[in-house]
Amino acid sequence: MTATEDLLANNAEYANNFEGPLPLPPGKHVAVLACMDARLDVYRILGLHEGEAHVIRNAGGVVTDDAIRSLAISQRLLGTQEIILIHHTDCGMLTFTDDDFKRSIQDETGVKPAWAAEAFPDLAEDVRQSLRRIENDPFVTKHVSLRGFVFDVASGKLDEVTL
Amino acid sequence: MTATEDLLANNAEYANNFEGPLPLPPGKHVAVLACMDARLDVYRILGLHEGEAHVIRNAGGVVTDDAIRSLAISQRLLGTQEIILIHHTDCGMLTFTDDDFKRSIQDETGVKPAWAAEAFPDLAEDVRQSLRRIENDPFVTKHVSLRGFVFDVASGKLDEVTL
Repeated sequence: MTATEDLLANNAEYANNFEGPLPLPPGKHVAVLACMDARLDVYRILGLHEGEAHVIRNAGGVVTDDAIRSLAISQRLLGTQEIILIHHTDCGMLTFTDDDFKRSIQDETGVKPAWAAEAFPDLAEDVRQSLRRIENDPFVTKHVSLRGFVFDVASGKLDEVTL
Repeated sequence: MTATEDLLANNAEYANNFEGPLPLPPGKHVAVLACMDARLDVYRILGLHEGEAHVIRNAGGVVTDDAIRSLAISQRLLGTQEIILIHHTDCGMLTFTDDDFKRSIQDETGVKPAWAAEAFPDLAEDVRQSLRRIENDPFVTKHVSLRGFVFDVASGKLDEVTL
């Protein structure tokens, strides 16, 4: 019995109480970019309901090319106008370096990933880096609000980081 | 008043009822890769609790290099062993082509994105494509379970797609 099978049983229950389809474009015109960390239930942290905001997540909540791709689609095809960035305390990305991680993969597989792992040593600095990457991007330009936060996994609070 | 400010007020309420920090590694050893679509509340769809699974999301739930980066970190540094892929009906990625989207950006900004937009014309086919990209990747190899699904935004149900 895998965990996946447990989760599929949960889905059957979810579908029993499911209320019909909602419109495709996010009702609050918001896109969130957050870390994939298991402790970040983004909908609960922000009090979001289904249908209100795009939620983009990756290791670190980093503004990668793929996050830019998702944000560009979010803004240009589905009308979002606000961006919320969420990093968090006790993040796994603080615990390693790109060089060590990629060397360990190379040692095991013989192949070094062509991608950056995007580890970072300082949370607030990386939120600022993320804000700047968006500000510098030529394709993600439709927002009227762009704000970055650190979620505290001990308190549940979002603390804003400004440039 | 931005929607972001509303959501920050929601967070203050969330923090009031927040119960202490959980461990960093996902308790169920699961990583989910899902579309960013606003209607997919992944934690509710799978009955996940905080701390149980990594949740990676992008436009389409596509297996991009950034999803591979996140899955490699998830498996190699944080011990996940199962992968769940979630696409969904009525997906925005079915409504455009890479060529048209990138041309519209080029027409407006003068610059053509160097990244693929990753639009797709067929849901089940793209789930299969995602399964195959993971199977072919040399760095994401630690899973004992890899399964792909289409979430039905009308019924709330996950329907499995197999190779």
